[in-house]
Amino acid sequence: MAGLQTLTSKGLKDEPGLQSNFEVDYVIHYKIPTTETQEAEAAFVQLVEALANVGFATEVRNGAKSSLLVFTKIASDKLLNSQVYRYRVQDWLYGVRAAAPNQDITKYFEDEPVTEAERLRLAYLLITKPKNEGGAGITPKTGQWKHVASIFPLHDHKFNREWIKQWSTKYYLDDGDINQIRDRFGERVAFYFAFLQSYFAFLLFPAAFGFAAWLVLGQFSWFYALVNCLWSVVFFEHWKMKEIDLAVRWGVRGVSKIQHPRPQFQFEREAEDPVTGEIVKVYSPLKRLARQLLQVPFALACVTVLGGLIFGCFSIEIFITEVYNGPFKQYLTFLPTIILTIFMPALQTLLTRLAERLTEMENYQTHDAHQASFVQKIFVLNFITSYLGIILTAFVYVPFGKILVPYLDFFQLTAQRFTADGKPLPTKSWQINPDRLTKQIIYFTVTAQVVNFVTEVIVPYAKRRVSKQVEKVTEKPEKNGLQIVDLPEEEPFLKRVRDEAELDQYDVTVDYREMVIQFGYLSLFSVVWPLTACSFLINNWVEARSDAMKIAISCQRPIPWRADSIGPWLSSLGFLSWFGSITSAAIVFLFKDKSGPGGSPSAISGWALLVSILFAEHLYLVVQIVVRGVVGKLDNPGLQKERAERFAMRKQLLESTFGRDMSDESHGVGTSGEQKITRETLEEEARQLSIKGSMSKEQQFWLRQRSAGETVQIGRHMFSEIVAANQTKAKK
Amino acid sequence: MAGLQTLTSKGLKDEPGLQSNFEVDYVIHYKIPTTETQEAEAAFVQLVEALANVGFATEVRNGAKSSLLVFTKIASDKLLNSQVYRYRVQDWLYGVRAAAPNQDITKYFEDEPVTEAERLRLAYLLITKPKNEGGAGITPKTGQWKHVASIFPLHDHKFNREWIKQWSTKYYLDDGDINQIRDRFGERVAFYFAFLQSYFAFLLFPAAFGFAAWLVLGQFSWFYALVNCLWSVVFFEHWKMKEIDLAVRWGVRGVSKIQHPRPQFQFEREAEDPVTGEIVKVYSPLKRLARQLLQVPFALACVTVLGGLIFGCFSIEIFITEVYNGPFKQYLTFLPTIILTIFMPALQTLLTRLAERLTEMENYQTHDAHQASFVQKIFVLNFITSYLGIILTAFVYVPFGKILVPYLDFFQLTAQRFTADGKPLPTKSWQINPDRLTKQIIYFTVTAQVVNFVTEVIVPYAKRRVSKQVEKVTEKPEKNGLQIVDLPEEEPFLKRVRDEAELDQYDVTVDYREMVIQFGYLSLFSVVWPLTACSFLINNWVEARSDAMKIAISCQRPIPWRADSIGPWLSSLGFLSWFGSITSAAIVFLFKDKSGPGGSPSAISGWALLVSILFAEHLYLVVQIVVRGVVGKLDNPGLQKERAERFAMRKQLLESTFGRDMSDESHGVGTSGEQKITRETLEEEARQLSIKGSMSKEQQFWLRQRSAGETVQIGRHMFSEIVAANQTKAKK
Repeated sequence: MAGLQTLTSKGLKDEPGLQSNFEVDYVIHYKIPTTETQEAEAAFVQLVEALANVGFATEVRNGAKSSLLVFTKIASDKLLNSQVYRYRVQDWLYGVRAAAPNQDITKYFEDEPVTEAERLRLAYLLITKPKNEGGAGITPKTGQWKHVASIFPLHDHKFNREWIKQWSTKYYLDDGDINQIRDRFGERVAFYFAFLQSYFAFLLFPAAFGFAAWLVLGQFSWFYALVNCLWSVVFFEHWKMKEIDLAVRWGVRGVSKIQHPRPQFQFEREAEDPVTGEIVKVYSPLKRLARQLLQVPFALACVTVLGGLIFGCFSIEIFITEVYNGPFKQYLTFLPTIILTIFMPALQTLLTRLAERLTEMENYQTHDAHQASFVQKIFVLNFITSYLGIILTAFVYVPFGKILVPYLDFFQLTAQRFTADGKPLPTKSWQINPDRLTKQIIYFTVTAQVVNFVTEVIVPYAKRRVSKQVEKVTEKPEKNGLQIVDLPEEEPFLKRVRDEAELDQYDVTVDYREMVIQFGYLSLFSVVWPLTACSFLINNWVEARSDAMKIAISCQRPIPWRADSIGPWLSSLGFLSWFGSITSAAIVFLFKDKSGPGGSPSAISGWALLVSILFAEHLYLVVQIVVRGVVGKLDNPGLQKERAERFAMRKQLLESTFGRDMSDESHGVGTSGEQKITRETLEEEARQLSIKGSMSKEQQFWLRQRSAGETVQIGRHMFSEIVAANQTKAKK
Repeated sequence: MAGLQTLTSKGLKDEPGLQSNFEVDYVIHYKIPTTETQEAEAAFVQLVEALANVGFATEVRNGAKSSLLVFTKIASDKLLNSQVYRYRVQDWLYGVRAAAPNQDITKYFEDEPVTEAERLRLAYLLITKPKNEGGAGITPKTGQWKHVASIFPLHDHKFNREWIKQWSTKYYLDDGDINQIRDRFGERVAFYFAFLQSYFAFLLFPAAFGFAAWLVLGQFSWFYALVNCLWSVVFFEHWKMKEIDLAVRWGVRGVSKIQHPRPQFQFEREAEDPVTGEIVKVYSPLKRLARQLLQVPFALACVTVLGGLIFGCFSIEIFITEVYNGPFKQYLTFLPTIILTIFMPALQTLLTRLAERLTEMENYQTHDAHQASFVQKIFVLNFITSYLGIILTAFVYVPFGKILVPYLDFFQLTAQRFTADGKPLPTKSWQINPDRLTKQIIYFTVTAQVVNFVTEVIVPYAKRRVSKQVEKVTEKPEKNGLQIVDLPEEEPFLKRVRDEAELDQYDVTVDYREMVIQFGYLSLFSVVWPLTACSFLINNWVEARSDAMKIAISCQRPIPWRADSIGPWLSSLGFLSWFGSITSAAIVFLFKDKSGPGGSPSAISGWALLVSILFAEHLYLVVQIVVRGVVGKLDNPGLQKERAERFAMRKQLLESTFGRDMSDESHGVGTSGEQKITRETLEEEARQLSIKGSMSKEQQFWLRQRSAGETVQIGRHMFSEIVAANQTKAKK
C-alpha cells in the first residue's frame, strides 16, 4: 500500500512489491465501463496493437475496480537509442544543444548516457504522439481512448525513500538536491523546487530585516516598504537570470521553442505553409481573438461574484462584530465565516471550471500556449480571493468607514423585519477598528498557511487511508465482484501498482500558484506586519519537504517534462512585485501617523496620496531598470558553460574550415605579400610599359610606384619638399 | 570640385575626375606637421609598410595643404576572398547566417558575390584591426598615427548622381531604394533611411488626423491626445518588428553580437578567461561603474547650466514682452534671443565635449557600448535644450504665472539702478498669455525645422564654397608654398580626391538625433497644435532628400558599417513615447476648458490632475502590452525568410543525418516490430522456460504474454470476466 510506510526502510523490506519496478516504463490504466462494453473491448484491442506497432512490449493484468492494467516497456534498446538520437538532433537544430550529436552512435551513448527522465519522456511521447508523427496516438480520456484513465510511470520507491530522508534531515537544499529531482522527475518539476529554494534563500533577508523592523520601526514604516520593494525587484531580476542559468546548465535553454502540439486542438482547415511548404493546421486567429475577448466578461464575473461574496461577508462581519450588539452575537459572529466556507470553494471550483472551458474554447495549438492562458485566468481568480479582502479593509474600510458604515443599517432593517417585535436591534456606537488590517494580514500569512498545509498534505492522505479502510471493510466480505487472483511472485508488485493507479496526478501549477500568491502577500501587504517574511520562511522550509512528500506519497510519479523557465508565473511575479510598490506606498501613507483609529477621507489629502503612489511606482520602475542592468552584467555558471561550449565549437569548426584556407592567406598577407607584388610585377611591368599606350589610366596609376618600397621612397621625397616649402613660408 | 555640379550629368562630363575611382579602396590622408617632422616621416614609412604587410597595394601623391594622400587597394582577389570567407564563416558561427558557407570556394563566390559595401568594410577592418589580429593597426588621429587625418573611401559619383536624381523625382521611397543605400553605404546608414522612411509613412496618419482634429476638435482635445498616444505606441512597436524584419532580410540579424573592439580601450591587465582559456583584456567593472556614476553630476550640470540659461531667458522674455512697457521695448525684445543664440551653442558644444570626455573615461571595450553610452548623454542634453522651454511654459508659466511673475520685479529693480533718475520703469498690468504655448510649439515644429535645414545643408555648403573662393584668391598669387604638379591624366582625379579629403565625416548619429527629437515634439506636445504632424510630414520628405544630398556632396563617403537596429535610439524613442502619455494628459487637463487666459493653481485640482496623469500613463502601459502582443504575432517577410532558411537547413541536416538511421528505426518501430518480438522470442522462450528457475521475476513477468496478440487475447478474457462480474453485481 502506498503510504508513509513506503518511505521507511522497514516498509520497503516488508513490502517486496516496492523493491522493483519490473522494468516497466508506463502503466496504462484501462477502465472497463458497465455499458458500451463492445466498443470498449475493441478500443482495448486497438490500444495494445497501437502500442505494439510503435515498438512497445506489453503485458496485461487485472486492475482494481473493473479495470485492466497494461504494462508497457520500450521493447528494444535500438528503438530507444534511435528515439533519443532523433530528439537530441532536434534539440541541436533548435539551438538547445550547442554541439551536434556525434555521428558514431555507440560512442555517443557512452559519452552522454540516457537518463531515466529522458527515457520516460521519450516513451511517453511515443505513446501519445499522433500516428502520422510515428507515435501510438493514445490520449487519455479523450475520443477513442475515453476509457484510458491514465498513463503513468511507476514510482522508484527506493529513490523516494532516500530523497525524503535526505531532505528532512538537512537545513538547506543545494544544487545537487535539485539536480537529483531533475534526473528523476524532469526539469518542469525541478524548476519548481529550484524556484522554491531560491525564494527560500532570498526570504532570509526580509525575514531578518522584517524582524528588526518589527522591533525598531514598527508597522507602516516607509523605510521597511522601500527596502521590501527593493528586495522584491532584486529577487525577481535575480530569478530571471537564475532561470537562464539553470536552463543552460540542464541543457534545456530554449526548449520552450520546441512546442508540443495539443492533441485536442481543432483545426478549421489544412493549408500549405507559403514558406516551408509544410502542411499546417490552421485555426482562424480572429476567431480565437474573439474568444479571448471573453476573458473580459470572465474577469468581470469573477470580480462581481467573488468580490460580491467577499464584500457581503465583509459587511456582515463588520456589522455584527462592530455595530450589532443584540442577542446571539457570539453565534452570529461566525455567520460570515460559515457563508464564506460554504460558498467560496463552490464558487472557486465553478469559476476554475469555467476558466478551463474558456481556455479550451480558445483552442490553442500548443500545450504551452494553452497552459499560459489558463494560468492567466487562474491568477485573476486567485488574486481576487486572496487579496480583495485585505484591499477592502485597507482602502475602503479604514479611509471611508465613517461614511460607509451607516449604510450597514440595511442589515439592521432587514434583521428587524424578522424579529417579532419590530423594535430596533440594539447597536453599539461604531469606531473604525485599526487592528483589523493587522489581524487580517496575520490570518492570511500564518493561519491560512497552516490551514493550507493541512488541506494540501494531511487531509488527502487521511482521506485515502480512511477510504481504503472503508473499502477493506465493505468490499471484502461482500465478494460480489470478481475475485482477482495474482501469481504469487507478482502479487505484491501488482497490489502496489493498483494503489498507484488510484493516486492523483501531480500538478505543479497548484504549487506554483501557492508560492506566487504567498509572494504577493509579502510584496503587497507586509508593510502592515513586518514579521510576514519570518512566517513564510518557516512555512517554505516545511513546504519544500511537504511538496516532496506529496509527490512521493500522494501522487502518481509525474511525467518528466522539460521546461526552461517557470513559464507564465514569471509575469505574475513581475506584476505582483510592481503592484506591491503601489499598495505599500498607499498603505504607508494612509496608516502612518494615524494616532487614533482611522482618519476620515477629507482629512486625507488625495493629492498627497497620489503623489506618493506615483513617486513609489516610478522609483520602482527606475530601480528595476538599474537592477536589470546590473544583474544582466553578472556572470553565472550556466552562461559560462554556454560560452565555453560555443567557444569550443567555434574553435573546432574554424580549425576544420580553415586548415586549408589559412595557408592560402599566408600568401596574400604577411611580409611576403609585399615581396610577391614586387617580384611578380617587376618582370611584367617591363612588358606592360612597352604597351603603355593601350593601358587604361587606372592601370597606369597603380603601376607608377611598383612596390611599397617605391611608395616610401617617393613619399619621403614629397615629404621633404613639403617640409622645405613650409620652412620657407615660415621664414618669410 | 565636389559640389552640386557633381550631381548633374553635365558636371560629370565636364569633370573627368568624377568618372572613375581608379580602383582605389581607401585613401589615407596623411598630414605633414610643421614640427616633429622626423617622427612624422618615420611614421609615414611605417604606415606604408604596415599596409603592404597586410596585402595592400599603395600609391602616394601630394595632398592639399602640406599633406600626402596614400591610395590603397587590396592587392589580390585571393586575399579579399579569403577575408570575405573568414568573416562569413564568423557570421555563421554567431548565428547571423543560417547556412554555413559552401566549402567549394569558387562556386560559393559565384552564388553569393561580394558587394561593394562588403569589400569596403573588410578593407577598412584590415587597415584598422590590431596587428595581432592580422590587421595593419592604423587608427587615425591616435598615438603613433596622430598625423593620419582620415581614412576614407571615394564617392561613386556616377551612382550618387543617379541616386539623388531618382529620389528627388519620386514621392515615396520603397524598399528597393533603401536596399540600394545598403549595398553602397552599408546597413548602418541604410537603417537610418529605413527608419526615416517608415516614420514618414507612419506620419501620414497623424498628419491627416491632426488636420481633421485641428478643424473639428481644436486644440487641447483629449481625443486627439488619446489617438496620438495610441499612434505612437503602434509606431514604436511596429518599428521594433520592422527592424528585425530588415535585419533578417539584409542578413545582419545579430551582428550587434559581433562586437568590434575599440582600439582606444585601455586595459588594466590581461587575464586568462576561466572558461575559454582565451587571453582577455580586463578593466575593472567597479572602476567603470564609479566613472559611470559621473553621469549623475553630468545630468545635473546640464539641467543647471542649460536649464538656468533657458529659465533666465524665459524670465527676461516674459518680463520684457508682457510686463515691461518702457523705452527701447522694441529692441529689448530681442535680448533673450540674442543671449540664447550666443550662449546656447557654446554651452552645448562644451557639454557635448564633456559628454565625449566622460564616455571616453568610462573606457568601454567595444564600439557599440561606447556609442550607446554617448548617445544616452547626448539625449539628455538634447532633451533639455529642446523641451525644457515648452515644459516651463506649459507647467510653470501658465499654472503658476500669477504667483511667479511678481518676482520678476527683480529685473525691474536691477534695471532701475542703471537708469539715471531711479524712477520705477513703466510697466503694464500683466495677464497670462495663453497663446504663448501655441506660438512656442509652432516655432519649434515649423520655424526651427526650417532653420535646422538651412544650418545643416545650406550653410556648410555655402561656407565651403566661400572658403574655396577665398583660397583661390589668396593662395594662388602668393605662391609661397609648394606648387603641386600632377600628371595630366591624373590631375582631375587627384584634384577631386583632395576635395573629398577636406570634407567632414558623415555622422549618422546627428541625423538620428534630429528625428528622435522631432518624434518627441509630436509625442509630447502635438496636442497643443494638431497640425504638428503635417509640418513634420513635409519636413521629412525634404529631410530624406537633403540627408542624401549631404552624404553625396558635403561628406566623405561613409565607411559601410553593418548594424541590426537603430541601436540606442530605440530606447530614447520608447522613453519619449511613454513620456508623451504623461505630458499630453497633463496639458489637456490644464488647458482644456480654460475659457479665459490661465486659471490660478488653486483653481486646478492637483488631485484630478494626478488622477488623469496616472490614468493616461497606465492606459499607455496596458495598450503597449496589447499592441506588443498583437504585433508580435504578425508575420513579416523577414521572419518568413528566416523560417524558410531554418526549415531548409533542418530538412537537409535531418536527411543527411538520418539517411542511415531511418532504416534502423523501421526495424524497431512499425508493425514488423511486433512480429519480430514474437518470432525471435518464440524459439528462445522454449529454452528460457526450461531454465525458468534461474530467471528473475522481472524476466518472467515480461515473458508471460509473448506478443501483442497474446496480450490482446488474455486482456479480452479478463475483460469479459469483469463485464460478467459487473452484470452479476448489477442484477443483485
